[in-house]
Amino acid sequence: MLDQNRLFPAESRTRELARRLYGSIKDLPIISPHGHTDPRWFAENKPFANPSALFIEPDHYIFRMLYSQGVPLESLGIQEAGPAGTSSGTNSVDPREVWRLFAKHYFLFRGTPTRLWLDFVFETLFSIEERLCADNADTCYDTIAKALAQPDFLPRALFGRFRLEVLATTDAAVDSLSWHQQIRQSDWSGRVLPTFRPDAVIDAEYAGFRANLDRLAEVTDEDVSHWSGYLAALRSRRAFFKSMGATATDHGHLTAMTADLDRGEAERLYERVFSGSLQPGDVELFQAQMLTEMAGMSVDDGLVMQLHPGSVRNHNAAVYRRFGRDKGADIPQPTDYVHGLRPLLNRYGNESNFNLILFTLDESTYARELAPLASHYPCLRLGPAWWFHDSPEGMMRFREQTTETAGFCNTVGFNDDTRAFLSIPARHDVSRRVDSSFLARLVIEGRLDQNEAFELAEDLTVGLVRKAYKL
Amino acid sequence: MLDQNRLFPAESRTRELARRLYGSIKDLPIISPHGHTDPRWFAENKPFANPSALFIEPDHYIFRMLYSQGVPLESLGIQEAGPAGTSSGTNSVDPREVWRLFAKHYFLFRGTPTRLWLDFVFETLFSIEERLCADNADTCYDTIAKALAQPDFLPRALFGRFRLEVLATTDAAVDSLSWHQQIRQSDWSGRVLPTFRPDAVIDAEYAGFRANLDRLAEVTDEDVSHWSGYLAALRSRRAFFKSMGATATDHGHLTAMTADLDRGEAERLYERVFSGSLQPGDVELFQAQMLTEMAGMSVDDGLVMQLHPGSVRNHNAAVYRRFGRDKGADIPQPTDYVHGLRPLLNRYGNESNFNLILFTLDESTYARELAPLASHYPCLRLGPAWWFHDSPEGMMRFREQTTETAGFCNTVGFNDDTRAFLSIPARHDVSRRVDSSFLARLVIEGRLDQNEAFELAEDLTVGLVRKAYKL
Amino acid sequence: MLDQNRLFPAESRTRELARRLYGSIKDLPIISPHGHTDPRWFAENKPFANPSALFIEPDHYIFRMLYSQGVPLESLGIQEAGPAGTSSGTNSVDPREVWRLFAKHYFLFRGTPTRLWLDFVFETLFSIEERLCADNADTCYDTIAKALAQPDFLPRALFGRFRLEVLATTDAAVDSLSWHQQIRQSDWSGRVLPTFRPDAVIDAEYAGFRANLDRLAEVTDEDVSHWSGYLAALRSRRAFFKSMGATATDHGHLTAMTADLDRGEAERLYERVFSGSLQPGDVELFQAQMLTEMAGMSVDDGLVMQLHPGSVRNHNAAVYRRFGRDKGADIPQPTDYVHGLRPLLNRYGNESNFNLILFTLDESTYARELAPLASHYPCLRLGPAWWFHDSPEGMMRFREQTTETAGFCNTVGFNDDTRAFLSIPARHDVSRRVDSSFLARLVIEGRLDQNEAFELAEDLTVGLVRKAYKL
Repeated sequence: MLDQNRLFPAESRTRELARRLYGSIKDLPIISPHGHTDPRWFAENKPFANPSALFIEPDHYIFRMLYSQGVPLESLGIQEAGPAGTSSGTNSVDPREVWRLFAKHYFLFRGTPTRLWLDFVFETLFSIEERLCADNADTCYDTIAKALAQPDFLPRALFGRFRLEVLATTDAAVDSLSWHQQIRQSDWSGRVLPTFRPDAVIDAEYAGFRANLDRLAEVTDEDVSHWSGYLAALRSRRAFFKSMGATATDHGHLTAMTADLDRGEAERLYERVFSGSLQPGDVELFQAQMLTEMAGMSVDDGLVMQLHPGSVRNHNAAVYRRFGRDKGADIPQPTDYVHGLRPLLNRYGNESNFNLILFTLDESTYARELAPLASHYPCLRLGPAWWFHDSPEGMMRFREQTTETAGFCNTVGFNDDTRAFLSIPARHDVSRRVDSSFLARLVIEGRLDQNEAFELAEDLTVGLVRKAYKL
Repeated sequence: MLDQNRLFPAESRTRELARRLYGSIKDLPIISPHGHTDPRWFAENKPFANPSALFIEPDHYIFRMLYSQGVPLESLGIQEAGPAGTSSGTNSVDPREVWRLFAKHYFLFRGTPTRLWLDFVFETLFSIEERLCADNADTCYDTIAKALAQPDFLPRALFGRFRLEVLATTDAAVDSLSWHQQIRQSDWSGRVLPTFRPDAVIDAEYAGFRANLDRLAEVTDEDVSHWSGYLAALRSRRAFFKSMGATATDHGHLTAMTADLDRGEAERLYERVFSGSLQPGDVELFQAQMLTEMAGMSVDDGLVMQLHPGSVRNHNAAVYRRFGRDKGADIPQPTDYVHGLRPLLNRYGNESNFNLILFTLDESTYARELAPLASHYPCLRLGPAWWFHDSPEGMMRFREQTTETAGFCNTVGFNDDTRAFLSIPARHDVSRRVDSSFLARLVIEGRLDQNEAFELAEDLTVGLVRKAYKL
Repeated sequence: MLDQNRLFPAESRTRELARRLYGSIKDLPIISPHGHTDPRWFAENKPFANPSALFIEPDHYIFRMLYSQGVPLESLGIQEAGPAGTSSGTNSVDPREVWRLFAKHYFLFRGTPTRLWLDFVFETLFSIEERLCADNADTCYDTIAKALAQPDFLPRALFGRFRLEVLATTDAAVDSLSWHQQIRQSDWSGRVLPTFRPDAVIDAEYAGFRANLDRLAEVTDEDVSHWSGYLAALRSRRAFFKSMGATATDHGHLTAMTADLDRGEAERLYERVFSGSLQPGDVELFQAQMLTEMAGMSVDDGLVMQLHPGSVRNHNAAVYRRFGRDKGADIPQPTDYVHGLRPLLNRYGNESNFNLILFTLDESTYARELAPLASHYPCLRLGPAWWFHDSPEGMMRFREQTTETAGFCNTVGFNDDTRAFLSIPARHDVSRRVDSSFLARLVIEGRLDQNEAFELAEDLTVGLVRKAYKL
């Protein structure tokens, strides 16, 4: 199924050079500094359950598309949500039936990155050479199920086969990191690192926010009923994450708004947040203030800060009520970085020991705000094309719209940002091919020398990411 | 004048494949589910008046460009407006003089779709082989005028020659549809369908709004002085339109704002709107509420709903005062779909018997909002590149920015959206060529198989539009 | 270093045609209607000081990039600011050390227009054939320094060698234009024209605003303590600029907001502005009103009006405090043209003796607002891709996103907009190559005839700019 020249430009000289550039980087290790795989997989190293549980249930790219075409979520094995948005419900659909439904609708993914990723996985991992469809659904299912039972498809074996140099997970601030602990205490040498993600104790509208604060107090033994205790608790968790190998934090906010309140205001704001007696705007203001606090802590402890703003979560109320979070109903909104980030940047933007990596779901900011900001502030770097833009066209627009102002040096390589472990090599492969194509065009258009393109190809693949994430 | 390879990519293998894809669809029937032709033409089947009345007076793409370069509108035969913005005035400019002025300025359209459309019409319909200019203005005028007098240039003959399978017009909610009636009662089998467009009885700032409501009461025999009577009147008109063959409604709003008020609030809002005692924000809120009401009626009666938001109408006050609506002075503004549509979607977004087709004049929403929304909500589909974006570059951006997230399946094929009847084949030709080019690139870049591209080419031309508009 | 085919498309037929189009315009004179060179250079005609003072200190494209990668501004010879944001400080860094630092970091500019410009200057003016790097820093410095001492590198000699037909500078409203006077009185025939830039007496938050008003009163002998005196003073300065050869004004505002207050309101607003007793919103409202006033004066005196909105100046407070304005910390924000310009356009938009040239830092407005506005209003023209968008990709996006709606005729050719005098030919060369590539593609795609493309190439290079700027 896989075209060896996929994602290379049509014009022959450019294609030839893109192929050579890609050839020079395709076997480099994979560094995955931001993602959502489950550390338990690598701690326990048990076989993956079945093809549907592995490919469909965790992949909102897949079930959102099927849902948009009238396929009920429950028929795809999506579990109903338990209380407070958690996925504690159950679903008893036969995984083979789920797979058949998926196979029947696989044509919907024509022209999407999901199709590129899955074809890659099916062919390179499972030697499936015919595109998935209703007719071959069962055969494919059996092939994959059989493979998953083999030792070389265990999580750690795949980790090695994927040439993963580092794999970062994303973990709640109150997480015990017990699976990470278990990995570290094992005899396995794979580098799986946690990432500190405090949204659930910073966003006052997060499901179970108050309980999350209680848990934060408990695990840190700090009194989080007042501002300084709350900050101390967060500092304590960051230190713990760092001791467990974390090099970064991650923040998923609705906007890029930051604030820099004086101490008294911040204390009073926290009192209202803690006590639940919120005034209008408090939720957003508290998140804004906390971004600046987190930046300050990063200046102190050196953890790299990542900001992922702009997603309106759980847009579809009925789907949220029934199925909970992360069910493909998150929709981007415009993001204002220029005014939003100003308070934080005016406080910490010129610090030398501070890396803030910005992501966006609003491509209109690439050339207008993000590239200009990143090409001025010493602390700023641009994260790669994210989520809906993690695609060949999206990646190309990212390069075309940021490079001329920010250069390559203010970017940080690729993030796969996935919970679909098997798709990681596929995603990095797409990124390497698109970057090779972009660089090849610059050379053929006389904007870059060939030797520079080879240097940059390596930089974009491993050099920049190691530096930006301190790996 | 016409290059047989126009709009195909330069690179030879991609061009060759684009040509073959185009070859497979170029003779498919034209389905025109959204446009602004006059049903009277097909009812009466009289010859078109003269080249200027046919090509220039109704085409705001043409006179806006000439006006921007200093050509007075009155010299182009544009009629001065009568009361309430209607075009009841008169203009006594000699149509041949208008044509000469147009011909002299035809070079202004270099690089625009208008030029592509007109060259196509001139060459394929009138066998004119030299590009229009001051020197050949009279010859061209005579050639066209002579042809228009022939029987095979009568509206119905052209309808057949254009291989039109369906042609939808756009009709005011209070329209008697008498021309449509006349068509249906004639022995002609051409399928010309009305579309229900209620803006004039929903937008309280529409010229003659109050009189429009009176007319609505009159034609439905409902008491529109209260909310339920008003809704009943609209329901009645929708049923009438449906009985006359309509499969769709269309809504042209300033924004994509929707609302879902409770019954009491809605009643009181309508009272204020009806009595003209508006509070600030009422006009927009009423439109917002009415979109949700219309969605509910679509769930009931199955009429497909189209939303065309984002145009600031009549931006140029002096031009509006003198010449009225639709004189090339409508300017797009940014549109917020993510928050705007949420009330409607939370009410009806998961309904299986509901098609809502979204259009935009704000391309920054393609990848950010529209594709994510359409690839989740079962009711949503994306209308094609609209108005200022109905052009080769605009269509290509639409595909590049929506396909990776929404796939092809959440789009609805092409709309010509024109009152320039003769340009319909030209417009569909551009669309078919651009889609062929896009698909060819995906194949050459290894992102799609060749057989899939041929299937999709047909889908984009006839399959998706039939399904989305229930034709 | 320079590839003769740089910036031409890869595909061979398109490239060949682009090369021929470029060949037909590459030797046309340079018309530079908007820029920031120092008239003193041409008045005094003294040698440029040294390579660093010439290339680095005045070029915010360069030092912003180095600063973003951790190079302190002071190490680049950037002078600390004197009072009120003026650059009256001093910096004693050795220019050779500055140059070495720059050379060492020159690789950062890969993929940026700065690299294209500088390579062009180094090779074509100084016959440097090896790309700048740490190893050759001293040799390059010596080569350039030696050349700068030669007579054929004096400002007037370079002006001639660059084939400059006109060079416009940008000058404060209160400027005596003494250097321009000196040029006019000299025996040199180079055409260096002033441009009227009144921001410092219109923006109430401009550093030294009140002193600027005093100075305005002084140089015009008008009483600027009231509205009509203030307007008279501005009229007087415009007349003076015009008498000195100016054909245009320029306005750098935060937004594109305009206002059209009645006389009484405007008087009272000015009173508050003059007395410093500002109400919230007054600063912006006054700027908005003044754009309309300036438009009215342009209708009277025929000076072409340029509007450059959308830059949030001095975003980085610490850098501003220490180094002052224009230090690479200006970040664009979204700009609303459709509502912002409406008051001005409703007042003067249909005037035949009025040219208003619009620029943007917000590319999302190209297709959505700017092209639709410019293709309707007779007074409007679109300025070229500006600042962060003055780059190959940026220019191409400008053409792709404006041409289909606005045509070529509503654009005004290229602006180099630079204070880096030596880079002017390089910048025009990039523009000519990109336009040639765009036109070539239109021809190869059958959207334009070849002879039209040659005509348009000349128009885009010299025809449109002469007409739009009345040169």
